[in-house]
Amino acid sequence: MEKDIIKKIADIVGRDHCTTSLEDLHCYSYDGTGKTFLPEVVAFPDCTAQVAALMRLASAHVFPVVARGAGSGMTGGSLPVQGGLVLACSRLNHILEIDKDNQIGIVEPGVITGEFQQEVKKLGLFYPPDPASLKFCTMGGNAAECAGGPSAVKYGVTKDFIIGLEVVLASGEILTTGTRTEKGVVGYDLTRLFIGSEGTLGIITKIITRLIPLPEYKATFLISSRSLSQATTLVAEILNHNIRPCTLEYMDRTALDLVAKLLPEPPAPDIEAMLLLEIDGSKGAVREQTERLLSLLSTTPQCTIRQATTETERQELWLARRSISPATFQLSPHKISEDVVVPRTRIPDLVHFTENLARELGLTIITFGHAGDGNIHVNIMLDRDQEEQRRKGEIARERLFRQVIELAGTLSGEHGIGITKSSFLPLELDDTTLKVMKQLKNLFDPQGILNPGKIFPQDVSASAAVNK
Amino acid sequence: MEKDIIKKIADIVGRDHCTTSLEDLHCYSYDGTGKTFLPEVVAFPDCTAQVAALMRLASAHVFPVVARGAGSGMTGGSLPVQGGLVLACSRLNHILEIDKDNQIGIVEPGVITGEFQQEVKKLGLFYPPDPASLKFCTMGGNAAECAGGPSAVKYGVTKDFIIGLEVVLASGEILTTGTRTEKGVVGYDLTRLFIGSEGTLGIITKIITRLIPLPEYKATFLISSRSLSQATTLVAEILNHNIRPCTLEYMDRTALDLVAKLLPEPPAPDIEAMLLLEIDGSKGAVREQTERLLSLLSTTPQCTIRQATTETERQELWLARRSISPATFQLSPHKISEDVVVPRTRIPDLVHFTENLARELGLTIITFGHAGDGNIHVNIMLDRDQEEQRRKGEIARERLFRQVIELAGTLSGEHGIGITKSSFLPLELDDTTLKVMKQLKNLFDPQGILNPGKIFPQDVSASAAVNK
Repeated sequence: MEKDIIKKIADIVGRDHCTTSLEDLHCYSYDGTGKTFLPEVVAFPDCTAQVAALMRLASAHVFPVVARGAGSGMTGGSLPVQGGLVLACSRLNHILEIDKDNQIGIVEPGVITGEFQQEVKKLGLFYPPDPASLKFCTMGGNAAECAGGPSAVKYGVTKDFIIGLEVVLASGEILTTGTRTEKGVVGYDLTRLFIGSEGTLGIITKIITRLIPLPEYKATFLISSRSLSQATTLVAEILNHNIRPCTLEYMDRTALDLVAKLLPEPPAPDIEAMLLLEIDGSKGAVREQTERLLSLLSTTPQCTIRQATTETERQELWLARRSISPATFQLSPHKISEDVVVPRTRIPDLVHFTENLARELGLTIITFGHAGDGNIHVNIMLDRDQEEQRRKGEIARERLFRQVIELAGTLSGEHGIGITKSSFLPLELDDTTLKVMKQLKNLFDPQGILNPGKIFPQDVSASAAVNK
Repeated sequence: MEKDIIKKIADIVGRDHCTTSLEDLHCYSYDGTGKTFLPEVVAFPDCTAQVAALMRLASAHVFPVVARGAGSGMTGGSLPVQGGLVLACSRLNHILEIDKDNQIGIVEPGVITGEFQQEVKKLGLFYPPDPASLKFCTMGGNAAECAGGPSAVKYGVTKDFIIGLEVVLASGEILTTGTRTEKGVVGYDLTRLFIGSEGTLGIITKIITRLIPLPEYKATFLISSRSLSQATTLVAEILNHNIRPCTLEYMDRTALDLVAKLLPEPPAPDIEAMLLLEIDGSKGAVREQTERLLSLLSTTPQCTIRQATTETERQELWLARRSISPATFQLSPHKISEDVVVPRTRIPDLVHFTENLARELGLTIITFGHAGDGNIHVNIMLDRDQEEQRRKGEIARERLFRQVIELAGTLSGEHGIGITKSSFLPLELDDTTLKVMKQLKNLFDPQGILNPGKIFPQDVSASAAVNK
């Protein structure tokens, strides 16, 4: 990018809110994938008008613009793989409105999701989406990737709570979508087109969310099973017994061993898997659902259930669950982490498949995650510096994806496609669907300046990566 | 349309499944608006391949194709305003699958919504969307218009239950959107783009819905208020007391008088409005919510609450509520019926506005409907044969729409735009939004053959109407 363009960017956001220093660029070059791509400049706009001016400039001079929240994405959505401008949303971080009586919130994209949750909670309201990175990820990033989390089994994911957006288009024009009422059918649903579009169709500058009343009670259970296939079968069974948990997480034995010390008591040697289950709602509803759950499990052999009796114990269970992902690195220096989804009844098939795959390839594969909605995090452990393991890891990944499609599932439940999964897109989407998506991309971004190199299969030059 | 094209249509669907007789054409010329436009031919395809062949033909010979479910739409979505082919979905009427364990249903567009509800109910499952035309409207029409209904206040509308579609594009290509899992973020969300698009972007040939467990208990209440402003204020109050009704309907005095004979007991003379409220869920949850509701109302002066104690009484209350719309014709031969939405707390302002408007213009305006989500059905009564009333009706409608936008609302909550509201679209959507929507229309339907004349403001020649 030429110096006069950098100067124009500085003119738009102010010299103090734009940087080209190498140290700074490095801070905006990575995300949760561990991959690194240096941008050429980072700008920190603080209003929609500045974002619009940046996009007009990018359109006029044709340089890439990559929006960035907290950089916590798992598939490379915020990586500037073709350089250009990183548009950091850290100053677009205001909660603009919480309309308690109409149960609506309006935020800028840089608002931290967990902080928004805390603010609405003070008013007795609830914004359920709870990705693992809750404490630092942003509402804009969540919208762009359609983030999920454990609560999705009952409440749905980010897209189920966003009812309107303000988006700056590639041209710099400002688009308003949706309404501030839950109902609304005036023209096409543009809101959803942008949610999960990973910054490739426009820059989200404002988000309208619906909110729900805060559940008053919560009960937390840990179900230990001596049979892996029983534990995985139990997931659909629980949901089909008219129990609607707000958490239904699954952990295999390898995952449990990694966090055994964090659990209130370590799992007995013969335990093959555990389910972490929570029920929320009014006092009576939680009591009823609890009774139903205990009754179901009383007739289920080979498993035991314990309820967290104190908030401390509940926190311990969650700490253990949340620690699995980082703890996997005790086993290998690298991993391929996938968030595939299968219909709930196919979870046993999927887990069985990964076990065989691990055995066959001599790899460690850990499965855990949001079993309630069929969204299993499959972690293929490996050492990338060993050519053989890298190769086997890629084989495992491709075979996993093919199996998921075979099981009527989908390649990603909440992480998106980004760069890490784009080459597998044709496994799931047929030619017509891919063509239509590309036509939409071309309509909204004819010059290809919005987060280029993402979602669609293409030759992202590996050499552009500073490291991986 | 030339004879050889009609012949080709007959070749695709079979001679017995295609008609050009005037008597038949009349049967496919009208909808809930009372307006009539004759198609040139009606075809009844029975599979996706036939729909695709029809669209290839339409693309090659450039004639309009208008998909039609039951013709129960309220804004003209299924009217062939420019003639051409009506693609009737009555033979695409199969429930293809109900996957009980994964709580998913797959249907063809011609399946009647109420029948689908009954079928899933047999398996202990629930498909909540419940438009008034439930007993005869179709899943395809519901998807195309994004139908709502009383249950939307708790469960959401059609779009909240559809997770995937099969769509035949203008070109005849077959597009698959979404997944059969609730989570899924692979590429752009094309499903929502088609829902509510009123047949202008493609022909829906398959619908994947999510399903939820059937609520076990239900309690029904009728709240009578001696103060109109109190009744309308109560709506937001109830919801902000952590009560989540599955029905929260409002009826003004004029509406009540129309159906007084159908109510278990006629409303006292000083009653100004009533709310019909239902709570569903597990036994304990219904009990708790009932207690909360009664406690709230015990401190609310000027209103009384009665609970339906028998199923018969419950049915009577619903019959009365459902009879309002047809009963309005006791007052005048015609009406302008709008389904505007405002934030719940603005309902008192909206109702106050319509009262003043009615007084000022000397018209009868009835307000009733889905107050819980701010979706009020405003019925402006008139005799179209009287020039003066017709003129005043149009004035009332435009002023109503302007006021709704002023109150941060939207022109349509569940009926769509069709032809009746298209000229008002620029009131709600700014130039950029309209431009983007038109670009999308042009991308999916460059020749303008899919349901032409709908949604977007244009000169729909009134003379094309056989009658109105």
